[in-house]
Amino acid sequence: MTNKLYDTSLSLLTDLYQVTMAYGYWKSKTAEKEAVFNLYFRKNPFNGGFTIACGLANVIGYIDHFGFSKKDLRYLRTLKGNDNKPMFEEAFLDYLANLTLTCSIEAIPEGTVVFPNEPLIRVRGPILQCQLLETPLLNLINFESLIATKAARLRLVADTDTLLEFGLRRAQGVDGGMTASRAAYIGGCDATSNVLAGKLYDIPVKGTHAHSWVMSFDDEQQAFDTYAEVLPNNVTLLVDTYDTLQGVRHAIETGRKLEQQGHKLAAIRLDSGDLAYLSIEARKLLDEAGFEKTSIVASNDLDETIITSLKQQGAKIDIWGVGTKLVTAFDQPALGGVYKLAALQNETAEDSASRWSYKMKLSEQAIKVSTPGIQQVRRFRDERGFLADMIFNTEEMSDEKQPATMIDPMDFTKRRRFTVSQQYEDLLVPIFQEGKRVYELPDIHAVRARVQTQLAGLHPGVKRFVNPHTYPVGLEQSLHQLKTELILKLRESASH
Amino acid sequence: MTNKLYDTSLSLLTDLYQVTMAYGYWKSKTAEKEAVFNLYFRKNPFNGGFTIACGLANVIGYIDHFGFSKKDLRYLRTLKGNDNKPMFEEAFLDYLANLTLTCSIEAIPEGTVVFPNEPLIRVRGPILQCQLLETPLLNLINFESLIATKAARLRLVADTDTLLEFGLRRAQGVDGGMTASRAAYIGGCDATSNVLAGKLYDIPVKGTHAHSWVMSFDDEQQAFDTYAEVLPNNVTLLVDTYDTLQGVRHAIETGRKLEQQGHKLAAIRLDSGDLAYLSIEARKLLDEAGFEKTSIVASNDLDETIITSLKQQGAKIDIWGVGTKLVTAFDQPALGGVYKLAALQNETAEDSASRWSYKMKLSEQAIKVSTPGIQQVRRFRDERGFLADMIFNTEEMSDEKQPATMIDPMDFTKRRRFTVSQQYEDLLVPIFQEGKRVYELPDIHAVRARVQTQLAGLHPGVKRFVNPHTYPVGLEQSLHQLKTELILKLRESASH
Repeated sequence: MTNKLYDTSLSLLTDLYQVTMAYGYWKSKTAEKEAVFNLYFRKNPFNGGFTIACGLANVIGYIDHFGFSKKDLRYLRTLKGNDNKPMFEEAFLDYLANLTLTCSIEAIPEGTVVFPNEPLIRVRGPILQCQLLETPLLNLINFESLIATKAARLRLVADTDTLLEFGLRRAQGVDGGMTASRAAYIGGCDATSNVLAGKLYDIPVKGTHAHSWVMSFDDEQQAFDTYAEVLPNNVTLLVDTYDTLQGVRHAIETGRKLEQQGHKLAAIRLDSGDLAYLSIEARKLLDEAGFEKTSIVASNDLDETIITSLKQQGAKIDIWGVGTKLVTAFDQPALGGVYKLAALQNETAEDSASRWSYKMKLSEQAIKVSTPGIQQVRRFRDERGFLADMIFNTEEMSDEKQPATMIDPMDFTKRRRFTVSQQYEDLLVPIFQEGKRVYELPDIHAVRARVQTQLAGLHPGVKRFVNPHTYPVGLEQSLHQLKTELILKLRESASH
Repeated sequence: MTNKLYDTSLSLLTDLYQVTMAYGYWKSKTAEKEAVFNLYFRKNPFNGGFTIACGLANVIGYIDHFGFSKKDLRYLRTLKGNDNKPMFEEAFLDYLANLTLTCSIEAIPEGTVVFPNEPLIRVRGPILQCQLLETPLLNLINFESLIATKAARLRLVADTDTLLEFGLRRAQGVDGGMTASRAAYIGGCDATSNVLAGKLYDIPVKGTHAHSWVMSFDDEQQAFDTYAEVLPNNVTLLVDTYDTLQGVRHAIETGRKLEQQGHKLAAIRLDSGDLAYLSIEARKLLDEAGFEKTSIVASNDLDETIITSLKQQGAKIDIWGVGTKLVTAFDQPALGGVYKLAALQNETAEDSASRWSYKMKLSEQAIKVSTPGIQQVRRFRDERGFLADMIFNTEEMSDEKQPATMIDPMDFTKRRRFTVSQQYEDLLVPIFQEGKRVYELPDIHAVRARVQTQLAGLHPGVKRFVNPHTYPVGLEQSLHQLKTELILKLRESASH
C-alpha cells in the first residue's frame, strides 16, 4: 500500500468466494482464460450530481505488493469443507504460492469527476487473477471516492474559506481515519488534524488546544495566557469551555499581550452553541478591540447543509472544522461500487471479430443490469466545459477520431451525435500492462488541484445539491446494440 | 496493534492539538501533573437501549507499542508556526524521544453491555501522556463498539439463524473492513467472508461463488455442475444471475448429481428481488425435490429492520448475509465517544481528602456537561438480571460493600437505594498499572460468548428497537453533590 500502514501480506484481504472461485477456475483448467472486468458505481452519493474518483494510489500499492505469503497458504490449508476435509488441494496452494499478477489495468486518474456506470477501473487478464482483485479494489475505490466527493461538496459551499478536516477520533478505525484524511485533502480540504496523515501523505496539519487545556488551569485567562506564551506563533484559542463570549473577551486580553511581543492572535474557535449568533457577536467584540485580522474557526458536527445554512444566516466564520460528517460520509457511509465480468476470451474464435464472448448480469431492476464490452469513456467538451461522456467498446471503435452517436441508457430515444471535430478526452489510461506498472502517480497536491479544474468543467446545475441536473452519460450506438441483443438472448435462454 | 496490520509507528496517530498541548504542558512544567480522563459516550447508537463495549484489545495493542520513532520526531521538527519558525523546541522532541507511558488504565472488558455516561476507559497519569492518548483511544473504541452493537442487534433479530458478515468491499478502508469483521463476530455474527480477518483473528470464514462464476460459463447448469464437481464439500449455489426460480431448478439438478456422489447441496443463495416471495417459492421447489435440508441464504442490503420484516412475511431464510449496513453501521456510522478531564492532582493538597481538584466542562446543553471524579461503575443485579448501574467516585466510596443512593442525572428527584446485601459487580478492571500491563486478554470466542451472557441479563424492554426502555444509570449521591457544587461554582466564575 502506498499508505505504508500495513506490514502483513494483504493478498488474503478478499472474500473467501474469490478464493473458492479461483480454485474452481484452476481445477477446471480455465484459470488462464482472459477476462475483462469493469469496476463502476450505479448512483452518485449524497443525491448529488457528480463523484470524484479516488483511491487509485492505494490500488497501485496493493497490486505492487500482491503475493501470497507462506503464512497465507498455511492458513488456507487449515480451511475445511462441510465433510471436515480440506477445502483446497495442495497443488492449488502451490499454484497460489507462485502466482504473479499479469493483468493489464486501465483506470481513470484520481481527482477526475466521474458519473454512474462509467468504468473507473478496467481489469483484463487471467480470470483467476481478475477475481482475486475484486474485493480489495472495491474496498479501496469505494471508500476514497466517497470521501473525496464529500470533501468536494464541502469545498463548494466553503468557497474560498479555509476547510479543515478534524475527523480521526470518530473515523471507522485507524485506516478509516488515515484514508479519509488523504481523500478529504484531495477533495478540497486545506489541512487535517491527523499528524500521521500529515507525515505519511504530505498534508498540512493544523491544531492548537482542546477544552482540557483550559480545564487544567484554575481559570480561562491563565490557560490562554500560558498557551500564548508557550506557542506564540500558533495561537487559536478555544473560547467555549465555560461561557463563550466571556471566553472571547479572555482571548482578546491574551491577544493584546501577544501583540506587545510582536505576535498575533491567529484565531478563536467556537465548538458549541448557536454558531451563527456567537460568531456574529464574537466578530463584533474582536473588531471593537482592533482584532479585525483574527479569524473565527467553527466546528461541531458541521456538514455542507449546516455550513450553507450558517452562511445564509450571516455567520462570521472564516475557517470551518469538519469531522465526523466528513470522514464517515455520515449521510451515506458507503458507495455501492461493483465489479462485473464484461467479456471473456472466446476459445473457438476464428477471427478477431469473434475473439470475445460478451458477458452481463441480468436483473429485474434495470439499474442492476451490467454493460458488456471492453469499455472506455470518451468525454466530449467545448471551450465552456464538459458536454457528455460516451461509454464505448474499444473493440468496436478505435481511438482515432470518428463521428459517434451516443444513446441514453434510460431512454433509448434520446441520442446525441458528435462530429469528428468535437474535442474529447478518453478517460481511462494504462496503469499496468501485463503486470508491469506503466503509470507514474502524480503527487497528492496535483491530484487535489485536478479536482478543482475538473469541477470547473461542470455546469453549475450538475454541482447543485438539490435536484442536480443529470450530466449526460450514454452508450455508443454499437455498444448499446450489443447490450440490447445480449439481454434479449439471455432472457430468452433463462426462461428455458 | 493486536490486529497486526500496521508496520509504521502509530504514536503520531493523533490530533495535532494533542502534541501542541503536550508541548504546552512540557514548557509550562506541568507535564507530569497527575490527571484523570474518562472515555464515555452520551447516547446509545441506532436509537437503541444498549451498547456493546468493544475495541479494548486494539487499545492495549496500541499502548503496548507506543513510542515516538526517529522518523516521527523528524516530521515534528519540520512543523512551522505562522511566523515560519519551528513550532517545537529541540528539547521537547528529545523529551518525546524518551517518553515511555506510565499511565494506569482501567477499562470495562470487551463484550460488556454499557450505557451512556459510563466510563468505558479511565486513564490516570501524567497529563501530557493522557492527552496524547485521547484521539487514538476514541478512534479505536468508538468504531468497534458501534459495530459490535450493530451486530448484537442483528443477532437479536436473527435469533438462532446463522448470521454471516460479508461487508469488506463496502467497508471504510482496509481497516474499516478488518476491524468491522472482528467487532461483528464479537457482537454475534457466526462467520465472515473476509479471509484476512479469518486468518488474523481466528474467525470462521464462509463463501462459495459470485455471479461472475455463473457468467463465465455458457449456461447456469454447467456453471453449477462444475462448481459442485470442484468443491463438492462446500456447495452453496447463487441462483439469481439470470432468473431466480429457474436458478433454483438448476441448483436442484446439481444437488441430485452431488447426492449420487455422496455429497450434499448445502444451500442456495438469493441476492436480489423479492426475498420473501422468492425464498418461499424456492423452499417449495427444494422440498418437493427432497432437498429439505438444503438451506436458503439471503443477502442484499439487509439490516435488522429488513430481517424483521422478512420474518414477519414468513420468508423461508435460514442464513442471513449482511454487508454494507453492518460494517459501516449505515444508519449511524459513528459513535460520539468523548474523553474528558475529570480530576487533576492538587499541588497544594494538605491532606488526602483534597489531593484532587475535580474538573468538568460546562455547556448550555445539559447532555454535554461532563462528570468529575475518579469514576467506577457499580452494576447491581439480582437473580433475574441487571437492575441499575451507579457511577461513583472511588475517592468517596471504597470497594467495600456499603449502602448507596443513586440519583438519576436527568431528574434529581428520582433516587434508588441499595442495601449492603445487594449483589453487584464493579465494571472497570485494571488494564495497565503505571505503564505495566496487568490484564490478560480473553480470546475472541470468549468475548463473543460474553456478549450473549450480558444481553441475557437485560430486561427485554431495554433490548426492544422501538422506544426501548431506558436502563437506569445514575450518579452515587456524593458524586451527584460534587458535580452540582462544581457546576454552580463554574457558572458563577464564568460570568465574571
